[in-house]
Amino acid sequence: MADENYKMVLPLRKTYVSSCRAATQSTPEQGNVPPHHLTHHRRHHRPLPHLRHHARPHHLHHQEAGLHAAQVTPCMCPLFSCQWEGHLEVVVPHLRQMHRVDILQGAEIVFLATDMHLPAPADWIIMHSCLGHHFLLVLRKQERHEGHPQFFATMMLIGTPTQADCFTYRLELNRNHRRLKWEATPRSVLECVDSVITDGDCLVLNTSLAQLFSDNGSLAIGIAITATEVCSSEAEM
Amino acid sequence: MADENYKMVLPLRKTYVSSCRAATQSTPEQGNVPPHHLTHHRRHHRPLPHLRHHARPHHLHHQEAGLHAAQVTPCMCPLFSCQWEGHLEVVVPHLRQMHRVDILQGAEIVFLATDMHLPAPADWIIMHSCLGHHFLLVLRKQERHEGHPQFFATMMLIGTPTQADCFTYRLELNRNHRRLKWEATPRSVLECVDSVITDGDCLVLNTSLAQLFSDNGSLAIGIAITATEVCSSEAEM
Repeated sequence: MADENYKMVLPLRKTYVSSCRAATQSTPEQGNVPPHHLTHHRRHHRPLPHLRHHARPHHLHHQEAGLHAAQVTPCMCPLFSCQWEGHLEVVVPHLRQMHRVDILQGAEIVFLATDMHLPAPADWIIMHSCLGHHFLLVLRKQERHEGHPQFFATMMLIGTPTQADCFTYRLELNRNHRRLKWEATPRSVLECVDSVITDGDCLVLNTSLAQLFSDNGSLAIGIAITATEVCSSEAEM
Repeated sequence: MADENYKMVLPLRKTYVSSCRAATQSTPEQGNVPPHHLTHHRRHHRPLPHLRHHARPHHLHHQEAGLHAAQVTPCMCPLFSCQWEGHLEVVVPHLRQMHRVDILQGAEIVFLATDMHLPAPADWIIMHSCLGHHFLLVLRKQERHEGHPQFFATMMLIGTPTQADCFTYRLELNRNHRRLKWEATPRSVLECVDSVITDGDCLVLNTSLAQLFSDNGSLAIGIAITATEVCSSEAEM
């Protein structure tokens, strides 16, 4: 993992529900979230620290101007806790400006998730820019079986499923004489990250493995993206 | 995975308990197994097919003659369902002759576990001979959370913990545009395979991942062993 960028990320706390999105869900600011979603956890966003860019936040709408005609694909924010809907092309500015998700550059990076001991549910999120596209890494701590939290990590392309098929991502953990690598084709953010994680079609760690790979409560995940075939010239994001 | 050996292995059915071994446990033939071990499953051995060697079975005892003086280490059979105790040096003939576990040769092999759909608990077991040692691969299907079977794969060295530290093993699954690799130091059979699996310090697959990596109910696991440092000249097995 030479020449890697390196980013420390604190968890973005969230409440998890098994469905992709609840139609009646409130925004965090409103505070009147339906109680069946929040039996044990309050939903709030904890802004990510170490923000290097200084973009001015503003609200984006799906009527956003200036979209490329060929890619006007409506979609929802890939973060569960957000009601935003817009076009695929403005997902990146939405994530940066509304959720303050930082972007790492380069084909190989290291994502350092801190405070792994915090109770489920929790999300750690980073954007990764390379090969002309933006990718979204989601690391989620979740209890699929009560009292047994697990960690799920997957990578989404902020692009269409056809574009996603051009790439392979690799997640790698390496510590304590153990190494775990997961390679797969990223999913498109037009699909639902929650269903990917619920299906377990991602890197899955039980708590003891997560501890073995962690250093002082932080988990370093090496991320690499490669192009599996010549991507079409539509890579414009 | 070029130049690999290839072996198809049917599951060895077993009953799992969380402790390493029950002192009062009966052999399968006796049929009077304590009921707290066998609430749902009958214990029986299904002989492994495709047996290439024709060793004559015989009972081994821990008074086995002809042991090397420096390695007379008493141990138990690594298979839960067996009461045998003996010395480390005769674990391999015990596994071959009493349990008909076959041996694959070569630094890289492929282990094909069939009938992955069978209900838990089940074990698939193979011995792997390379670099002057014998290794034991254990693939276990087990329900750690009721109704949610998982697969656990680990490799044990039929040798001492000091000898085990000389090696790294890699298990690799590769199918459906997904690849999962687990690398670790093998444990010694003097440790308890059940505790390794209970701790989850091994390759862990949920059912959906196992299905993604399976072909027609069979899971192919690529296995490679490497020496991590110059092993001492005590490699005599």
